[in-house]
Amino acid sequence: MVINRISIIGTGLIGCSFALAIRQAGYTGTIVGFARQLKTLEEATSIGAIDESTTDMATAVRGADLVMLTVPMMAMRSVLLQLKDHLGAHTIVTDGGSVKASFVNDARDVLPSMQYVVPGHPIAGRELSGPLAADPELYRDRRVLLTPTHETLPAATAAVEALWQLTGAVVEQLDADHHDRVLASTSHLPHMLAFGLVDMLATRQESEEIFRYAAGGFRDFSRIASGDPTMWRDICLTNKKELGVALNELIDNLQRLDAMIEASDGDALGALFDRAKTARDKHTAC
Amino acid sequence: MVINRISIIGTGLIGCSFALAIRQAGYTGTIVGFARQLKTLEEATSIGAIDESTTDMATAVRGADLVMLTVPMMAMRSVLLQLKDHLGAHTIVTDGGSVKASFVNDARDVLPSMQYVVPGHPIAGRELSGPLAADPELYRDRRVLLTPTHETLPAATAAVEALWQLTGAVVEQLDADHHDRVLASTSHLPHMLAFGLVDMLATRQESEEIFRYAAGGFRDFSRIASGDPTMWRDICLTNKKELGVALNELIDNLQRLDAMIEASDGDALGALFDRAKTARDKHTAC
Repeated sequence: MVINRISIIGTGLIGCSFALAIRQAGYTGTIVGFARQLKTLEEATSIGAIDESTTDMATAVRGADLVMLTVPMMAMRSVLLQLKDHLGAHTIVTDGGSVKASFVNDARDVLPSMQYVVPGHPIAGRELSGPLAADPELYRDRRVLLTPTHETLPAATAAVEALWQLTGAVVEQLDADHHDRVLASTSHLPHMLAFGLVDMLATRQESEEIFRYAAGGFRDFSRIASGDPTMWRDICLTNKKELGVALNELIDNLQRLDAMIEASDGDALGALFDRAKTARDKHTAC
Repeated sequence: MVINRISIIGTGLIGCSFALAIRQAGYTGTIVGFARQLKTLEEATSIGAIDESTTDMATAVRGADLVMLTVPMMAMRSVLLQLKDHLGAHTIVTDGGSVKASFVNDARDVLPSMQYVVPGHPIAGRELSGPLAADPELYRDRRVLLTPTHETLPAATAAVEALWQLTGAVVEQLDADHHDRVLASTSHLPHMLAFGLVDMLATRQESEEIFRYAAGGFRDFSRIASGDPTMWRDICLTNKKELGVALNELIDNLQRLDAMIEASDGDALGALFDRAKTARDKHTAC
């Protein structure tokens, strides 16, 4: 499938970084940007991410070979409802959302067919947001997970994969439910811990002092608590079940750890820390 | 007080980084290193951290103007018992441990006087350990917290402070109990979360896949789960009370967060994430 015209719905960090990356790799088609705010579109234009800009959804998707939705998860359905009557018969619809079963359900409910729907999730991001934070190198050597449905045409998936490969990303395919279960643990849960910890410390009387004495480990740890609140609210709402399972499993683990500390069980503590260190060092290079 | 001879008990990352840093800043006295393993002493000598080395405690501290203990927290008392009869009447005893009330108690029980005891805690570290990981820049612009007791001679505290200032660190004084309460939240608790999370994921069936799809946020978050298991076991055992309080407060917070997710309470989730992001961005520059 030839992709001569791409429409990016929501020209923020994710969409603009994608646009900059494929351009840098030689993509010569037209990239249209849609956003609600004129300022966002002006910024996206100023950094060279988009060729055309509009605040009208119909104009944004008309004639597009591929539409990429990079909006918060809870806005997906509303956006699909607004654009569905303006899509071509063969327009590919893909997204950059962090939860995949939810997007599949929204698309299935709203669109007449799933043949051209290719759900996607680039595992990359920054704490900053908006077009001015965009970076053409954001996706290089990072994973992009595509979760095509069994109705999705292989050619549509291949077209989306080819575009992501232009960004330098490593593209993999997996099942949407499986994606949501794995990401609940590796991404959504760590964010909950970071948000929960920072919120707890911030509400303490001595919070000024606490942050002053915070070590480097805390800075690394809490960086992810600087993510966009709306995006993370929507991830909680749309991956509720899997995130709930992971969060409760972790709470159980922390309660066991608390019992070891309470019992001064040095052997059990040492064994746990050793297991964790071994796993971390084995799996993570940096 | 003139410090012409420094004895470092436990020539690992913390002690050797200290030695390299003060030398780099022009310290011209003698630095003696003690370790149980000859290999550790050879490494400390090879990087230029120590002038003399010994596996005999009496030899290590004889004639020292200042003794610095950089051993795991649970080894402090045993080391103090071994060296107490070999200290001079005016030898300053300081340490680099992460828990301070525990060291104060050990010193008070073992030593004849607290006049020359200056408990210290450099808030800096790396996941690597041992002399070969030492870095003369480890402490630059980092905080070093001293918790002198009310018996400690101000001149002894001043001597320790002056040495740490040579490393480029920012030295502050506070009460030992206060130190332990604050560090329980800002350092010990985040480490427990990271160890607990990594351990939970490592024991899952799909752990290979989970680590493969882990995002950058997870890498930052889990880096601290690579800390030395013995050191962290000892921190749990010696700061048991304060860490227990902090851990239970966090578990309560996570249970509230879980209830918000379960209830799909978007407003409460958004407000929490917003509070955390605001606090994090306000207090932490990077």
